[in-house]
This record gives sequence, C-alpha cells and structure tokens, in this order.
Amino acid sequence: MSQDYSSFLRQNIDAHPVGGGQGVTFPLGFRAAGVPAGQKSTGAPDLALVVNDGPQITAAAVFTPNRFAAAPVQWSKAVMASGVTPRVVVLNSGGANACTGAPGFEDSKTTAQRVASVLRTRANEVLVASTGLIGKPLVMPPLLAGVDAAAAALSTDGGPQAAEAIITTDTHSKTTQGEVNGWRVGGMVKGAGMIAPALATLLVVVTTDALVDNETAQRALTAAADLSFNRIDVDGCMSTNDTLILLASGASGIRPSEEELTVALAKACYDLSLQVIGDAEGASHDIEITVAGAVTEQAALEAARVIGRNNLFKCAIFGNDPNWGRAVAALGTLSEAQCPYDATQVDVSFNGVKVCIGGGVGEPRELVNLGQDRRVKIVVDLHAGSEAATIYTNDLTYAYVEENAEYPT
Amino acid sequence: MSQDYSSFLRQNIDAHPVGGGQGVTFPLGFRAAGVPAGQKSTGAPDLALVVNDGPQITAAAVFTPNRFAAAPVQWSKAVMASGVTPRVVVLNSGGANACTGAPGFEDSKTTAQRVASVLRTRANEVLVASTGLIGKPLVMPPLLAGVDAAAAALSTDGGPQAAEAIITTDTHSKTTQGEVNGWRVGGMVKGAGMIAPALATLLVVVTTDALVDNETAQRALTAAADLSFNRIDVDGCMSTNDTLILLASGASGIRPSEEELTVALAKACYDLSLQVIGDAEGASHDIEITVAGAVTEQAALEAARVIGRNNLFKCAIFGNDPNWGRAVAALGTLSEAQCPYDATQVDVSFNGVKVCIGGGVGEPRELVNLGQDRRVKIVVDLHAGSEAATIYTNDLTYAYVEENAEYPT
Repeated sequence: MSQDYSSFLRQNIDAHPVGGGQGVTFPLGFRAAGVPAGQKSTGAPDLALVVNDGPQITAAAVFTPNRFAAAPVQWSKAVMASGVTPRVVVLNSGGANACTGAPGFEDSKTTAQRVASVLRTRANEVLVASTGLIGKPLVMPPLLAGVDAAAAALSTDGGPQAAEAIITTDTHSKTTQGEVNGWRVGGMVKGAGMIAPALATLLVVVTTDALVDNETAQRALTAAADLSFNRIDVDGCMSTNDTLILLASGASGIRPSEEELTVALAKACYDLSLQVIGDAEGASHDIEITVAGAVTEQAALEAARVIGRNNLFKCAIFGNDPNWGRAVAALGTLSEAQCPYDATQVDVSFNGVKVCIGGGVGEPRELVNLGQDRRVKIVVDLHAGSEAATIYTNDLTYAYVEENAEYPT
Repeated sequence: MSQDYSSFLRQNIDAHPVGGGQGVTFPLGFRAAGVPAGQKSTGAPDLALVVNDGPQITAAAVFTPNRFAAAPVQWSKAVMASGVTPRVVVLNSGGANACTGAPGFEDSKTTAQRVASVLRTRANEVLVASTGLIGKPLVMPPLLAGVDAAAAALSTDGGPQAAEAIITTDTHSKTTQGEVNGWRVGGMVKGAGMIAPALATLLVVVTTDALVDNETAQRALTAAADLSFNRIDVDGCMSTNDTLILLASGASGIRPSEEELTVALAKACYDLSLQVIGDAEGASHDIEITVAGAVTEQAALEAARVIGRNNLFKCAIFGNDPNWGRAVAALGTLSEAQCPYDATQVDVSFNGVKVCIGGGVGEPRELVNLGQDRRVKIVVDLHAGSEAATIYTNDLTYAYVEENAEYPT
C-alpha cells in the first residue's frame, strides 16, 4: 500500500460482520437479477447479472494470479485490457469453466455475446465470472436461456437475488451495504471456507454510485482488497476463478477523495470477508490471529499467516485446546529474514489469557474457555517492534473434511 | 546435493517399506535399551539409550531449524559444536521439553550428566532428544531413575526396545536394517504423520559399523536426509524437536566410499520415511506425488510439495476422488520463477489413468479406483524439461482431525 490505512484496520479489528440488505443494488444506478440457468443439479438459481446504468461507467477488477486461470478470468482480463470500460457482469455458479481449454474460452465469450445481444451493448463491455467444479464444461443451452431470463428480470432491487445465484457450498447468500455522506457502496460475495486454508473461489462484485475515474477506482479497489480479502486468504493462494469487480455509476453526483473511497470499499470488503469466515465450510470457530510487536506490518502478516495455515493448530482450536505450543512451533518455521524476533521474548494470549510468556509457560491453560463462543482471539506479541497485522481463519473440523471429501470442486 | 543421487531415487521410487529387525543394534559395536521412566501417563517405555562402543567414535547430526528449538536440541547442538564426538544418545518420549526456558535446558543438561555419570563418560559426549507435549516440563526424578535402569539394561540386541520407547502417537515402533559388503546400517524412527502436513516431530537414530570420519559422516547424513526425510516433510516445516543422529562404530573394519555410505544411509532413511508415512495419524491413503518433465529437480520438488500440502486435494483423496482440478489449481499458485511450465501442456495421472491432458479434461475419472489400495500414485508431467521429484504425503481424514484435536502436542 502506498497509503497507510493502519488506522482503518485498528478501528475495524473488532468489527463483527453486518451483512444483509440490497447488496449490489443499494447504490443508485444499478440493476441486478438472479435466476436458475441449469448449471446446478438442484435447479437452484445459478446465474446472476449486474448492470451499471450510469450515468458514468467506471470499472476496476482484481483477478486470481493462478496460472490455471479459468476461461471466464481470461475473458474478463482481456475485457479490462481492451480499453473499453465494462458495464455488465454475468456470473454463474454450478461450473467453474476452468481447465476446459479453447472450448471453455468460447463458452465464456458466447455468454458475454449473448448478454451483449440481449442488453444491446458490446461483448467487450461484459465481464464473466464462474464458480463450481473444475474441468466440467458449462451446459450452454440452459445457461444462454438463463441470460435471457435474467435480463428480463433485471431490477433496481435485484441485488439479493443476484447474491443468491452465485453461492455454491455457502449456507446463505452474503451482501453488504453502506452509506457515506450522500453516496453509497454495496456488494455481494460468494465463498465459504475454501479460503481457509487454501484455494478458495471467491467471487465478489462491489458497486458504488460515487463519481470516480477508472484509475482511482483501480487503486482504491486494490488497496481495499489488501485490507480485507487478502487478510482471510491465509496462505496467499488463489483459486483458478477468483474475481473481484468494482462498478461505479456516478449516480450520486458526489466525487469522494481517493482515501474516502478506499476506506468505504475496504469496509464493504471487510464486512464481506468476515461473512465468508463466518460461513466457512464445516468450521466451528472463527479464529482471529493478531501478531503485534513486529518490526514491519509485512513481518506481522507473515507470522499471522504461518500460524493461521497450520493444520495442527487449527485442529487444536476445534478441540477447544489453547495450544500455544503449536502456535509458536509454527511461528518458529519463519526465517529471521521473514520476521525478526527473539524466541525468548514472545508472548501468546488466547482470549486475553497469556498462556505463553517469554516463549515459555505462562498463565494456566485452564483459564481459557474456547467452548463458549465461536470467535477465538489470539494475540502473539513478538516484542520486536511496533507493527501489527491480523489474519482471520477457521478451525479444522470433521465437517470440513467431510464437505471437501464429498464435494468435488 | 553436490553429488547426483537421481539414480538412487529412480531405483527406490517404487520401494515399499521393509522395516523390522534389530534397528540400531544391527550393526556391530552398539548397545541399546528402552525402559519406562515416568513421562508417559500410561507407564509405557519412554526412555531409550543408544551407546556406541567403538572401536571408532564417529557422529553426525541434523537438527530442526525451528527458532523455538527445544532444550534438548539446544543441548545437542552445543555438544556437536564442542569438538568432542558424542558416543551416547539418550531419548525420551512423553515430553518435548520445548518452550521450557532455562529450567528446561538445565533438565536436558542434568539428563546428559546422569547418563555420563552412570556410563562413565562425559556429559558433552551425550546427545539428548525429546518428543511429546510442548511447554510441559520433564518429570525429572523418574526420568533420572529411568536413565539408571536403561544403562543397566543396555544390550547388543536392545534396538527394538529402544525403538519402542521413543514412540508417541505412532501405532507401532519403526526400525530398519541393511547389510552392504560386510558392513551394516541400522536405524529407528519416531514420528506419525505430524510430518504431513506440517510440523512433525521426527526423532531418528541411525547406526553403522562402517569406518568413517566425522566430516564424511556429516556429508553423507545430510545427503541421505535430503533424499528421504526431506521428501516426506511436505512443507519444509520442522518441529521444535526434530533430530537425526548418526553414530558410526567402525566395528566392521571396512571403510566404504562416501557414495556407498550415502546410498546405504539413504536407503535406511528412505525405509524409515516410508514407515512414517504408512503410520501417519489417521490417514487412509499414502499419496506419492511425482512431478516429471520439470526444468530442474528443485522446481519439480516445489511443484510436488505445493500439491502435497493442499488440504482440499488431500480431502479429495480421502473421498476416493481423483480430483485433478484441485491438483492443478494448487500447482497454479507457484510462480513462473518457482517452476516454469505452460499450463496448457500439463498432464496429470492418478494410478496410471491420465485424467488431465494438456491442462484440460483427459480420460474419464471413473477409470480411477482409489478405494482399492492404500497407496495412490499421482504423476504430473509438466512437459517443460527432463527433471523429476517425488513427495510422499497422506490424505486428510476425520481421524487426522480427531487425533490432533484431542492429543495436545
């Protein structure tokens, strides 16, 4: 980050997910819809449209760096690079259209063309996002019929339906909305715990009626993602399909400063992130790991991540065991270059009880009760500097294994 | 590796664990014992001694790089650095003596002193290794009494008892032995699946009656570890207590070449590694991931590791699902610098069925039967070069979660 948003993070560290509401259609200038389109075997809604009606057409996007990026990601990247600003997003669940080769890319293109045709725009103004099983081709006839149905169903209060249509293993749809000095932000996310510990597919659409140009929007979105989704992606891995899109309509007529915009987007993304953690596949605890007293924020982040991705540690939390030994053993695998600290100075607390002091035994484990609340707060103080960072993850449970052994991604 | 041991790896790639036998007392010149010493609440044997009776006293060791290295590791590192060659190893299970501060170091020192006193040697000729719960102090009176009992029980066929005394969550003790042109190698290991996916405690003692000097022994041991234990440690993380020790007695009177010695040690370590994978906590499949067609062996290793540590992939194998999508999605998170390849050229096979061809759908998944055999062989061909590497790991199961949620480490 060029700008320092630590104060944002400090203010929001104790935030609980809010969620709900209109989502992408909360800001002015947007219509959305969600309909069944024959990709999910259950017949549930699986195709969503989000349309920016302006008056301004601004867009920004962040895509997965995965080298097996899915066809819709390849298509949408090409759109963003084309010099034309997209005004529509079409999303489907029930099939990731990943590892599907040239025919898969044709399917994404055909989808965009159909959307363009029915909405009287151009295909390179249509972003495409997909989620579901890798290596499974989309079933195109019902999908294209779904595009027509969704276009017909577009409405200025269609945000909740769109949010519903993009979920996969999520137990519920996830939206957010907020108002800032006369302009608005809305959003929806799909994702449930494949985030933690690895390889989530996260589809996110954020909308705003603020006036903003493409370049500012891109910087603000990237910074907002860094403050939110990048703090729940515990090992920095991204799936083949991850897509985060911002559309701005300018319909409020208000032009916020870049910092105002970034903070508002970050709040929306942060709220969506916490909802993802709260709905993680089979999890029984939401784990907040703060590493404080670090030399740099980056070092604190690395330290929090290495603890947050440790399976033994995650199993211990499932067992309601404040196992600081596993936390420091994970921390100990970072090199001095990655995170400078002195092992004999490290304190660890679970829900406020300092069970490890100076790298050794501290207050009695028995004082920690992890069975009471879904939320667990772990603070590791390195006593090496004054920087801090927080990572959110979940415990590793029977249900996680069950879901991921039986649901083919 | 300065030397190229690829031929060793190619010969042994299909090896199954052999195990059994005398272990550390198979070579001439060694005595060992295993006795109960009050650290395990069950009263099971938990203290082992291995003594090198010479005529030659040679030793080498590899220790965890973990920055929270346990007191016994700190002690043993100091011994190795002291210029005196150790002739005895004392090991205990039932307590890792990690994160126990200065009193913990005193306990390791006191243990070494007691061994030295009862065996009439010096404390800095005694290596100490411990495994069990982090942050729990050793119970010293019964441990010291155990040292006396073990010294009294030392015998030239005590290897199996020593191997029994070092296990923790292992379902059985693990030994190996082999003979090469008139000289012998033996060994024992403790470790069960905390290896895969992260933060194992692995205690290993390997013995030989070959004639070898300390420097050659150290090079051979390091290379052997790289060819074996470093191929099952799927994320390169090491626990607070990992210790690999080689003692050489020279009792055979035979001085092998460094290459002969390395290959013999690697065979022993490889056999012990496969036994660890075969006894992994709660696992139902042993997964062999070979990445071929890589530009370098290092790139192949990185690729195999990133797949092997992916929880979604490991859950899929538990569910008998040949989920190549999760394998390539994990592979896709490596950067071009880490592992060069073209995503549209990658093939993946499960037990010989090429389910992914050219980065897309290949032969039908239905042809793969993962339910039949504990062993699963995955081959990823990058078609980018001619180097290959194999990583061994396990699936992620209910039983893994159960064991690690309920057993505090």
